[in-house]
Amino acid sequence: MATEKNHQAILIIDDSERNADMYYATKFIAPDPFIFIQINGRKTLLASDLELDRAKDQSIADEVLSTSEVAKTLKAKGIPANSVEITDWVLKNRGVSNILVPANFPVQYADMLRKKNYNLEWKRDPFFEERVIKTKDEIKAMTQALRHTENAIHAAVDVLKKSKISGKYLMYKGNKLTSEDIKQVINVKLMESGCIAAHTIISCFNDCVDPHNQGSGPLLANQSIIMDVFPHSSETRYFADITRTFVRGKASEKLKKIYKTVQEGQEIAFRQVQNGADGSKIHSDIMQYFDSLGFKTGVMDGRMQGFFHGTGHGVGIEIHEPPRISVSKDILKTNQVVTVEPGLYYLGIGGVRLEDMVVVNENGCTNLTKFPKQLEI
Amino acid sequence: MATEKNHQAILIIDDSERNADMYYATKFIAPDPFIFIQINGRKTLLASDLELDRAKDQSIADEVLSTSEVAKTLKAKGIPANSVEITDWVLKNRGVSNILVPANFPVQYADMLRKKNYNLEWKRDPFFEERVIKTKDEIKAMTQALRHTENAIHAAVDVLKKSKISGKYLMYKGNKLTSEDIKQVINVKLMESGCIAAHTIISCFNDCVDPHNQGSGPLLANQSIIMDVFPHSSETRYFADITRTFVRGKASEKLKKIYKTVQEGQEIAFRQVQNGADGSKIHSDIMQYFDSLGFKTGVMDGRMQGFFHGTGHGVGIEIHEPPRISVSKDILKTNQVVTVEPGLYYLGIGGVRLEDMVVVNENGCTNLTKFPKQLEI
Repeated sequence: MATEKNHQAILIIDDSERNADMYYATKFIAPDPFIFIQINGRKTLLASDLELDRAKDQSIADEVLSTSEVAKTLKAKGIPANSVEITDWVLKNRGVSNILVPANFPVQYADMLRKKNYNLEWKRDPFFEERVIKTKDEIKAMTQALRHTENAIHAAVDVLKKSKISGKYLMYKGNKLTSEDIKQVINVKLMESGCIAAHTIISCFNDCVDPHNQGSGPLLANQSIIMDVFPHSSETRYFADITRTFVRGKASEKLKKIYKTVQEGQEIAFRQVQNGADGSKIHSDIMQYFDSLGFKTGVMDGRMQGFFHGTGHGVGIEIHEPPRISVSKDILKTNQVVTVEPGLYYLGIGGVRLEDMVVVNENGCTNLTKFPKQLEI
Repeated sequence: MATEKNHQAILIIDDSERNADMYYATKFIAPDPFIFIQINGRKTLLASDLELDRAKDQSIADEVLSTSEVAKTLKAKGIPANSVEITDWVLKNRGVSNILVPANFPVQYADMLRKKNYNLEWKRDPFFEERVIKTKDEIKAMTQALRHTENAIHAAVDVLKKSKISGKYLMYKGNKLTSEDIKQVINVKLMESGCIAAHTIISCFNDCVDPHNQGSGPLLANQSIIMDVFPHSSETRYFADITRTFVRGKASEKLKKIYKTVQEGQEIAFRQVQNGADGSKIHSDIMQYFDSLGFKTGVMDGRMQGFFHGTGHGVGIEIHEPPRISVSKDILKTNQVVTVEPGLYYLGIGGVRLEDMVVVNENGCTNLTKFPKQLEI
């Protein structure tokens, strides 16, 4: 917890749909900004009339106040009833003049509060330090979302297997099978199990070389197809994240070599991930291994090629959370949940990325991902 | 456009998945923060190696720079390569010391830049004023999303119609029909047409009295069922928003009266929405109309009841955008797209909300919504 000093209020003003700290602090989902104040561990939530009863029901706040009630008091005194004035009213009533906010707290509110002589400090992420360490329930929620995601990838693989190779294309039900078709299979299957997927990546051959390219158009036979799927459960809010690479037909020798190399890159990480391990050491070991086999990274033919993204990231109520396994030093801790997702991408050959989710243990890690790794299908 | 003065840079540092201004400025979707700088109308985007090629392809920036290239230069000088130092390097190179940021710009970055003697000002929302006025293409995108949403509601109504009334419950395929069942029908149907729905509301009877209650459990025969559906297109990013209220079976006389009253409330708005109209006047006219018929608003039996939310809000790449049709004065302008969604909610009777999306015209408004309004089905 971002520990508030005596008489220092923790303050967040935001919606909890997009601000994960606000959701974590309140466990209350609302699409419009509301106010969260915590003084000496006591959580106060200020909600509009529209959200008041739901906030009382669903949030973990110790008290829920009505912003419109405060607004009435302010208006009677000729004070505009905006978020800052409402916050000021609560803090003044409680004799607090020191405020701690997240690093992404809006400068508008910060300036307005400082003008009112509050001593406002911000804290670097992670604001709530315990958010980085996952509880059993949180790991269970992510595992459930991951199982649904694996089922969706199975459904996609079924379609790929049923498709017929016709020259360079894959034919399915009389049409060229496309990236969009496979995305729909996966996203619909996920929605059927209450998981919301966005930006699902189904990229093929040279499109794979841009790892965030979502892919489009006909999928090719005998070429790499990357499936990177990262939905969140609409019920628990927790994310899953998995990537597999397939070839429908025969893979080139070069692609097979890359696949084996990336798989070994994952193993390098699996052997090192544990409490106290430095993410940057893991990342650079994988980099060096790739390099030692001649898989270079850098700009070639005007495009980034090789392995040019991080090895992994934390997952939780955001898809990308601390810690990172990347160029920056970041020490892993027990019960963090991180992805391990090295990749190699070359124009004319295609791309391979393999991504599993693992729990950091005292002396090792537990792989939450069950989906098998097989290139050719 | 938030117009930058001569030698004042517009600056945003955020991801564009959640920050709609960042998406609007760059038309580039990225899940992690990146840097946008605009000087004298020229847009510069700074992206990581992972996003570089995609940013060059997809964004509307005039130039895309590599953060890792800038980072190398900084590191050579012993300067940490964080977002603020990278921004500072670009701005210094271009001789700019005045910065304009959105109101929600992170206080962390603001403080760090001010410490470097930048004159940093923020602008109240809407940051990009033209975002509030919709182009033909934007209205088309929202209309498309709305058509898909209406199709999904048709599918849900089909299921309701096929359900059998059995005592107080609705039976479907041998089980009690639930809120969750209908949500799945709607959300899956939307996903099939490339629209992503979250927090779809299917609430029944007393659950309706909490307008943001998403609903759960068995749906009741002869009671109000509110369907509020507001997905966005995964392709265009634009939202649609529609609400209908149904009764499977026979509605009580009281509920019928409420339905007619809410429908007339919508008409009061439709007659007034036009360029130059004041949203707060429209809202208070509806309030007064409801009140005059005896439909009071306030806390009764410890719960907010009556009409206690705004009449409408702008829609675009966010579900809630300016302008508002609510208690606050807000002047409507031609080519804004707003919802008109009065509602009345009473414990023991149920709730009714009807919501259409309309385009503000010079002398009136155009209703984009086609779905019929019929209470009993």
